Order: sequence, then C-alpha cells, then structure tokens
Amino acid sequence: MSHVWNCARQSLMFFVLISVSSAQTHPEQQYDSLALKIFKTSLESGKAYDALTELTTKIGNRLSGSPNAAKAVTWAQQKMEEFGFDSVHLESCLVPHWVRGDVEEGAILFGGGKRLPIAVTALGGSVATRKDGITTGVVEVHSFKELDNLGTKAKGKIVFLNRPFDETKFNTFEAYGGAVDQRWAGAIQAAKAGGVLALVRSVSPHLDNVPHTGVMGYTDSILKVPGVAISTQGANRLSELLKKDGGLKVYVKVSCQTLPDVESANVVGEIRGTEYPNEVIVVGGHLDSWDKGQGAHDDGAGVVQSIEALRLLKQLGLKPKRTIRAVAFMNEENGGRGGEAYAAKERPGEKHIAAIESDMGGFMPRGFGVNTDSVRYERIARWAHLFSPIWADRIFPGGGGTDISFLEKKNVPQIALIPEMQRYFTYHHSANDTIDKVDERELELGAACLAILTYVLAQEGV
Amino acid sequence: MSHVWNCARQSLMFFVLISVSSAQTHPEQQYDSLALKIFKTSLESGKAYDALTELTTKIGNRLSGSPNAAKAVTWAQQKMEEFGFDSVHLESCLVPHWVRGDVEEGAILFGGGKRLPIAVTALGGSVATRKDGITTGVVEVHSFKELDNLGTKAKGKIVFLNRPFDETKFNTFEAYGGAVDQRWAGAIQAAKAGGVLALVRSVSPHLDNVPHTGVMGYTDSILKVPGVAISTQGANRLSELLKKDGGLKVYVKVSCQTLPDVESANVVGEIRGTEYPNEVIVVGGHLDSWDKGQGAHDDGAGVVQSIEALRLLKQLGLKPKRTIRAVAFMNEENGGRGGEAYAAKERPGEKHIAAIESDMGGFMPRGFGVNTDSVRYERIARWAHLFSPIWADRIFPGGGGTDISFLEKKNVPQIALIPEMQRYFTYHHSANDTIDKVDERELELGAACLAILTYVLAQEGV
Repeated sequence: MSHVWNCARQSLMFFVLISVSSAQTHPEQQYDSLALKIFKTSLESGKAYDALTELTTKIGNRLSGSPNAAKAVTWAQQKMEEFGFDSVHLESCLVPHWVRGDVEEGAILFGGGKRLPIAVTALGGSVATRKDGITTGVVEVHSFKELDNLGTKAKGKIVFLNRPFDETKFNTFEAYGGAVDQRWAGAIQAAKAGGVLALVRSVSPHLDNVPHTGVMGYTDSILKVPGVAISTQGANRLSELLKKDGGLKVYVKVSCQTLPDVESANVVGEIRGTEYPNEVIVVGGHLDSWDKGQGAHDDGAGVVQSIEALRLLKQLGLKPKRTIRAVAFMNEENGGRGGEAYAAKERPGEKHIAAIESDMGGFMPRGFGVNTDSVRYERIARWAHLFSPIWADRIFPGGGGTDISFLEKKNVPQIALIPEMQRYFTYHHSANDTIDKVDERELELGAACLAILTYVLAQEGV
Repeated sequence: MSHVWNCARQSLMFFVLISVSSAQTHPEQQYDSLALKIFKTSLESGKAYDALTELTTKIGNRLSGSPNAAKAVTWAQQKMEEFGFDSVHLESCLVPHWVRGDVEEGAILFGGGKRLPIAVTALGGSVATRKDGITTGVVEVHSFKELDNLGTKAKGKIVFLNRPFDETKFNTFEAYGGAVDQRWAGAIQAAKAGGVLALVRSVSPHLDNVPHTGVMGYTDSILKVPGVAISTQGANRLSELLKKDGGLKVYVKVSCQTLPDVESANVVGEIRGTEYPNEVIVVGGHLDSWDKGQGAHDDGAGVVQSIEALRLLKQLGLKPKRTIRAVAFMNEENGGRGGEAYAAKERPGEKHIAAIESDMGGFMPRGFGVNTDSVRYERIARWAHLFSPIWADRIFPGGGGTDISFLEKKNVPQIALIPEMQRYFTYHHSANDTIDKVDERELELGAACLAILTYVLAQEGV
C-alpha cells in the first residue's frame, strides 16, 4: 500500500479514534481520556523495550540458580530504584539449580555406520545419560495409552513421544496444553514401560530444527531416565525413517545435572496507595527464563511491562489510592518457588485485591483473562472499554499465571494480560526467543494496558 | 510460561472456543460452523505461506515493468490454474517503467574533507542527479508551510523534509498519512522554493538505518528535481549535525530513470457462481512491489491470501451462488494502472456486488473496514460474529484499497481486510519487507477471513 491518495481517501476513514466527549458522565467513562493518555505516553516515551534490550542482551538468559539469574535480580532492583518507586526490596527464596552441562548430542544411526545428526536438548530437570551416551533402538508413540499397550516392546529402548502440537487450534495455549504432558511426564512413563530415555517432540507449531526445552518431572518411586527434546523437523525425520526401518538406532548424549538449591529472590517494588495503602494490586512477570535464547518473550517481556506499568503512572504524576506493586518473580520455569514464597509470606494487615500476570509473550495486547467469582469478574470486566482505543478490549472468564496462582487460595482474583498468541510457541523455550522477535510498540502497549488496569483497580477497587 | 499445571489449570480456562449449537437458528448463525471449519482448514493445510515463499524467494521483488513483475504475472496465472479455478485469464494494462539504476550514494560532508556516509534511496519516479551527484548546503523543514516561509533560503540547497511519523498514534496508517505528503510532493515543493533536491525522512516509526522508498510525484509546470529518502537514523543524525553546523554540505547521487511504458497485466481467476454468475465479488491484492526487499507484506501477502481464499473454498467443495473472483492487480505502487484498467473494462451483463482488498500486510487479521452506504454496511457488518473465533470481528466504517478504489464510482462497496498494524511501516517499502517477517499462521488466518467473507456474500448477497 503506498499511494498518497489512497491513504488520504481510504485508509484514514476506517478508524476514527474513539474521541472522548466531556459530556460523558457514566462512572466507567471517567478514565477514558486518561487511558488514551497512557497509551500515547507509552508509544512516545515508554521504556519497556529499552529495559528488555538491557535484560536480554547485557545479561541474557536467566535460569534459576545461574549467575545470570542473580545478575537479573540486581538489575531489576536497580531498575525499580532508578524509576523512583516508593519502595524496593528483595524477598528471598530457595530455587532449584539444574545445569545443562556442555554436551548435547543426538544422531540417527543406520546400518553401515551412517549417522544423521539430530538437534536435541535436555529437558529441564533431566538426569544425564551415561558418559558415552545412550545408543539403542526406538519405539514411537503418540500417547501414554499407546505406550502402555506396547507391553514389553519398550524395554531397553528409547521412547519417542511424537504427538504433535495441534496446529488447527487458534488458541495456541490450548494446543500447548494438549501436547505438553509428553514433556512433563514422558520420562516417568518411559521408565515405567522399561524404556531408557524419553525423546520428546518439541512442543511447538513451527517446523524447524531448533529444539525447545521446558520443565519435566520425576517421581521418587520410578527410575529416573533422561528426558530430551528433539526438534519438530528432527521428529518428523525420525518418524519417517522408523517407518522404513523399525530397527534403526538412535544415539543421545546429554550431560546435565541437578546441584544443591541456591538462594535467590523475588524483586518487589511499589507505589504506595494514598488512601488504602494496605490494599494491594500485584502486577508481575517472571525474571527467570530457560537457558536458551534470551528469555525475551518468556518472560523478560512480562517483567519489563510490569515495572513499566508503575513507571508510566509515576511519569504521569498519578497517585493511586491503593498500593500497586510490581513483582519480578523468580523460578517460574522449574519450580514456581518465587510465586510460592510470595504468597506464603506473612504481610500483616495487608490484603491483595487483585493479581495480574503478563506471561504469554510481549505481543500485541488483545485483552485480559479474569479468574474470580462473578461479582468481582463484572467489576473488573466493566473496564474493558478503556482498552478499545487499541483494540485490546476482549475480556475472558478464566486466566492467570503460574506465579500469581499461589494467591488463589487466598481468594485473590487472578488476571492474565492476553496478547496475540499465534507466534508465542514458535519461540518459546528455544534459542529463538530473542529480542529481535519483540516489537517495541506492541510491548509498550502491553505495559500501558497493565498501567491502566492497575490504576483503575487502585482507584475503584474490585 | 511453562508449567504443565499452569497450562492445565490456568491457561486453558480463559478461552472456551465459541461452540456452535445446532439449536441456533438465527439466519446469521447458519455459517458459524462453516467459518470454524475454514479457520481450521487454513491452519492445517493452508497454502498461502508456501505460495508467498515461492513468490518472494523464487522471484523476489516485482516493480512494475521489471522482468520480475513479468515473471510474477506468469507465476500467479499458473498458481490459479494449479489450484483448479474455473477460469483464469490476464487483463493487460500499460504500466510505468521506472528503474533505479546502480548508484545510490549519500554522505554528510564536514570541513577538512571528513565524510559521514548516510543511507539513501531514490523515491519511485524520481529523476537522477547529475552524473557527479549533488553537493550543496541543506535547509531542514518539517512542513511545506515552513518551506514557503524560508523565502530564498532554499535556493540552490537540498531541502531536507524531516517531519517524523507520529509514533503516538495507534493507527499507524493514520500516522503514515500524516507524514507521506513530504514524500509525495516533496520534490515539487522543494523545486518551487528553488531547491535542487528533496531529501525526505523515511516514513516509518522505526529507528534504523534502512531507507524506505515509495512513489513521488511531479507536475509539468515545475522543474523536476530528484526526490530521495534518507533512513530515520540518518535523518536524526543529519538534523543533530545541522544544529551544530548549519553550513555543512550533503552529497547525494542517484542514477534512476523513467523508461517507456511497458505492457503488463492483472491476473484474474474465479469460481463461477452457480445461481447468479453475473454477480461478482472481487477479492485482491497487488502483485507489483517496490524494488527493495521481497515485497512480502506489501503486497505479496494480499495476493496469496486472495488466491488462497478461492483455493480454500474449492478444497472444501463449496460452490458459491455468486461468482468469486481473485485479482492480482498490477502497478498499485506507482500508478494504479491495473486497478484503473480493471474498473474501466467493459463487462457486459456483469455487476460487482463487493470488492475486497488485502493490502495492509499479512499480519494477524483483526477485522474489516467497510466503505459503502448504511444499508449495505449493515448487511456486511452482520457477519462480524463469524470472525470472533479468531478475535477478528472488528468492523469499521470506511476502508478499501487503491486497486479496488477505481470501482467506487460504480457504487461497489469497498472492503479492506484489516490486520494488526503496529509493525507494517517498520518493513514497508524497504529492504526489510521479507518473508521472515511474515508468520505462517497469521497469514493463513487472513486468507481464511477472505474465504469466509467472500463466500457468505456470494451466498447471501449484499
């Protein structure tokens, strides 16, 4: 699209920005012009993208327990102090310390010594293979039921869990939920069936050669065998080759290990409420990330947006009646210890009235998911129109985030910032989750949404 | 976001895909399940992205009159034939043939012979500089009024038009409209003021070193001076340096020229209506692009989505009552000759009932802009709910596209597919408009939207 006459005649017509008449008197409309101002300010002078650039390029990825995670804690604290929050402090928590080690190798072995390398990566929490790796035959399955039905056929074999991400689902989080059991419980189920390693198809809709990691579990009663992700292209190739030669072997070697827990912290900063300082709205994301890429969308984006929400309010000189608190949570990815510690901490006299998390990527905001009783749902959902100037006014029942989920038993409404979601799992937990995949304007608008929602809840309650 | 328990407990809750009850009987709801099927089919087996990959990587960019534009005509025709459209043909048109030539150089010259190179590119339609380039002083302005007020100060100078893209506007097309006059009329206004070259800030919200081209105009009564774009970073740098040294000089050399018009064509393919074959719904994008990057978002995306819309209907065995016609228009960028020729052609007995264009990038669809009288607007807007399963149900008054705008005088409703728009002008008309900026799922969903809207209009009329 290019022509000036087109722009003048066609494009400009379709979108007359909702103008705010001073004659409007509905109580829900009193924040309309403020919301517009916050959106414009975020586009003009937002600092979320600059902060994310620092976090992702000066520090990089930040797995719990790593030196980078410790640097990120210091960075987030300094950032909140630099922005002049009323108070900033750390709240410590013990976190797991799993390290990947230097070696991740995979290959398909054919008769006659031919080798086809495959891209693999250890799942978070996995034990290592033997020092010389595992070389054995493969059984391919698409469900745990299919694995159960194999009888003894999985014995001594690599169990290849190859159920794909359902690309026909618009809701990519639902599709993720439909495949991620293989990653979480694959090693347990493989070992139960007598297998020696779980080789898990990366949980992504995108065909490429980049494996996606993510947390996996063990149970004490079952032998711990390694859990390893294979790229989607690698999985397709292996599946094809197995159809031709069911007896081929696969070699996998990973050198990860779990070290003793490490002390780490949530970073907490706030703007103190002027009238009801003990009523708190929490807004957060998680500071830790997987040790691939830069943890840009997952979840550097959520951290910088949460901090930026408060910074925007300060820049505009807004003084909320209730306290608005940004939390950069630690250890969402492989333990949730930060979220757990935050909820467990005694805070005498304090009451959380809402908790908001941004942990679905720094893409264009589309709305919020709100998980609470119907009365409070309506009290929150009535603000939807504030987000219509940027077409982010969809409010869904349900939603939240791992970190804030620990507040659920305290009956705190859980709210998720919901962005555009088609691309998230293409990058998620992989080397491709880097700052160049984040658009500055989209990220800043997400921060503006958090600023508006936290402020209006601080003023009006829930 | 990672935890399996999070996915199971939180994320899955927020979005229960609108389920279609067979008990629903409103006439507007009879297409609900079909729309869902088309969305799923597009995500599962859509071919728009593969087609765009071919167009952008096997052919590349496609400026009107170029050998690549001719190849693209053949490619589009073959693609429509391959997909089994009921009829496919070319409709010829004469197009301008402007060529960039080999040389594009720019530099800021300081005292003492120091040179700072700046990234420049000729605007489409510009005349060349002298063979040894232009080296002279610079006047910076931000509006034509400011230029008028300079009196004789622009005489013999490079006129540097540096009004930025208004980044505070959510509607980037509106922001584009607010800056593009400098590009379109900059050389005319510069020459009127006695200037020797118009150096125009790239019309983009993004700060980088990549200049953006685009069409510019001349009028016969005024001397033709070159029009050249400078990158946004280059423009900022030049502006800073001018503040320190108003007497600095700039060197620009471009070697473009306009050759005689060339015969080219629109590519037209259709599914013939079963009941009212003479009533036609046109859906199109433009096949030509600027000679930078690959013309991926602008507008390879619109072309492949329009063709894919028909292919999806065929794949699903749908036989529309009215004719649905895909048009790959030629020469939107620098002449609009294809759109003009399409509208001017006599088509005895035929009546266009709607024209839809996709020329705002292949990003996630958000809805449609509809430009017609209020009766037909409502008849079209009542289908909004069909797009809610993918959150693309915003309908705006106004909208269209350059190519279909020529049908407006025939009283044909003009409809634009409106996608997410924050990133479009970052890539637009520049070397960055490449296939890697297009997401497969988002592109396919846009094609599905076109398939659904064209089909429902074909069945129900307007």
